[in-house]
Amino acid sequence: MASQFRHHHRVTYSDCTMGNHVYHARYLDILEAARGEFFRAAGVPLASLHEHELFFPVVESHLHHEATARYDDELIIEVVVTELDQQKIAFAYGISNTRNQIILSGLTRHICIGPDGKPKPMPAEFFNQLSLAFTGKPAAPAAPPARTPKSPSFPA
Amino acid sequence: MASQFRHHHRVTYSDCTMGNHVYHARYLDILEAARGEFFRAAGVPLASLHEHELFFPVVESHLHHEATARYDDELIIEVVVTELDQQKIAFAYGISNTRNQIILSGLTRHICIGPDGKPKPMPAEFFNQLSLAFTGKPAAPAAPPARTPKSPSFPA
Amino acid sequence: MASQFRHHHRVTYSDCTMGNHVYHARYLDILEAARGEFFRAAGVPLASLHEHELFFPVVESHLHHEATARYDDELIIEVVVTELDQQKIAFAYGISNTRNQIILSGLTRHICIGPDGKPKPMPAEFFNQLSLAFTGKPAAPAAPPARTPKSPSFPA
Amino acid sequence: MASQFRHHHRVTYSDCTMGNHVYHARYLDILEAARGEFFRAAGVPLASLHEHELFFPVVESHLHHEATARYDDELIIEVVVTELDQQKIAFAYGISNTRNQIILSGLTRHICIGPDGKPKPMPAEFFNQLSLAFTGKPAAPAAPPARTPKSPSFPA
Repeated sequence: MASQFRHHHRVTYSDCTMGNHVYHARYLDILEAARGEFFRAAGVPLASLHEHELFFPVVESHLHHEATARYDDELIIEVVVTELDQQKIAFAYGISNTRNQIILSGLTRHICIGPDGKPKPMPAEFFNQLSLAFTGKPAAPAAPPARTPKSPSFPA
Repeated sequence: MASQFRHHHRVTYSDCTMGNHVYHARYLDILEAARGEFFRAAGVPLASLHEHELFFPVVESHLHHEATARYDDELIIEVVVTELDQQKIAFAYGISNTRNQIILSGLTRHICIGPDGKPKPMPAEFFNQLSLAFTGKPAAPAAPPARTPKSPSFPA
Repeated sequence: MASQFRHHHRVTYSDCTMGNHVYHARYLDILEAARGEFFRAAGVPLASLHEHELFFPVVESHLHHEATARYDDELIIEVVVTELDQQKIAFAYGISNTRNQIILSGLTRHICIGPDGKPKPMPAEFFNQLSLAFTGKPAAPAAPPARTPKSPSFPA
Repeated sequence: MASQFRHHHRVTYSDCTMGNHVYHARYLDILEAARGEFFRAAGVPLASLHEHELFFPVVESHLHHEATARYDDELIIEVVVTELDQQKIAFAYGISNTRNQIILSGLTRHICIGPDGKPKPMPAEFFNQLSLAFTGKPAAPAAPPARTPKSPSFPA
């Protein structure tokens, strides 16, 4: 498992808006699908984390649109982990088309919460597995003590 | 016309995802609806700009999620213009619920383009009208010479 | 409270697809918003039914598209109840624009279920309130014995 | 090319609503993606038809929901052509999960139009290619004279 992941998406009418380009918000949906497959490829599908009452809501997103994507374009979504500890995870993304044109760059930040919406550190088992899969390196031997994320009341 | 604008949105099932909270991407849809109403309140509906072959695609967006919104919540979306010249416009947003809880803060940047996707400066007539409506002040008397926006090839 | 209800929707870019018309699936989202307001106007918001562990999923939908709606059109959605008993409810819809052009006619059928997804008859209190509000008539004095809906295993 | 087509879809958070099931309208988006791949597999991608100024808007849809699909389910979408002439085309669909549970059955009807929204018969070249691919049989030797579809003014 490499520390970078690629996912493909074929643009549908549903993704597009007037003027025949992908509506800006749909890129977040496309990134979500890519991210879910990245977790699966890492051996830790998000659905399996749900069974352990762990969820990773998006707390921040940034999108930079470089060019338009159009109906029927095949998009290549590259995902890389930029930050990972037991409380949070962040991803950077690049989307390009098959003509190597960059469509979008972006990032999302996520915190790890339980079903009550309160921060909940990822168990070491999952953290180690994700560390190895996402970064190509095992988790740091002496993990820092659990810190309170910036948004302790999210989601209220 | 004040330089700040408020729009309301009632959360539907369509906005929500599992766990009964608004799916993060839907906030961009909600901000778009608020922004459209802001242009209308300014006396310049976006549809009237289309007739003059002017479009304002989103080239950048940033969302910070502070708390979750849930089904049937009434959301108050506040919009303010943070940047405006004949080539571009930027908006900042705050979304809160009726219990005065902040749900989201965000911003979007837009450039002014023609139907060919190439940058096209807004005619003085619209610029002046938007300046007055969005900032409460007339456009600066000596407008700077047209600068090339950072993304001259957007959307390609 | 009349037995017919009207809701308004302003078409956004988010609703549209290439060719500048509303994407066909978005009408179901628009009908959902109208239906939610119809329940609210009837004095029984769906969120209050959730508190009683009652949900009304769509089990069937039919849409007939008569003409296109476009960006910034104001749509008028008319909703009427066509079927109502303690197990199920059905709505018919008409959508038109402000030029009195018919855009769509449709219907949706719903069953009443509990949080386990199993059919659950509506308590008499809500049924009577909805009957009066939606049909203009009180519920029939001798309600038929609870029948098993056609889809007893929905949603599995 | 068989006359039946299968497409796969992995359910995302974006597809789901509260209660962790796929929101009913999203199935139309999923069917659209499957239909687009069916045209591609038939050797006639819809994008190539756009270049000939041919479009196939949905004029009617019917969905029957048999069971719920949930986050991360893999859905199998089966598509079959039920009606085809130079003016119109109709598809029937079945969606099931990997446990062979039927989730949905549905159909959509489409008419063939030009960029002005007026009915426009499909050129014989495409019609023959689609006939062979979608039905496994060549187009009938004596095609009936062009009939006016039921909705001649769609989309107005």
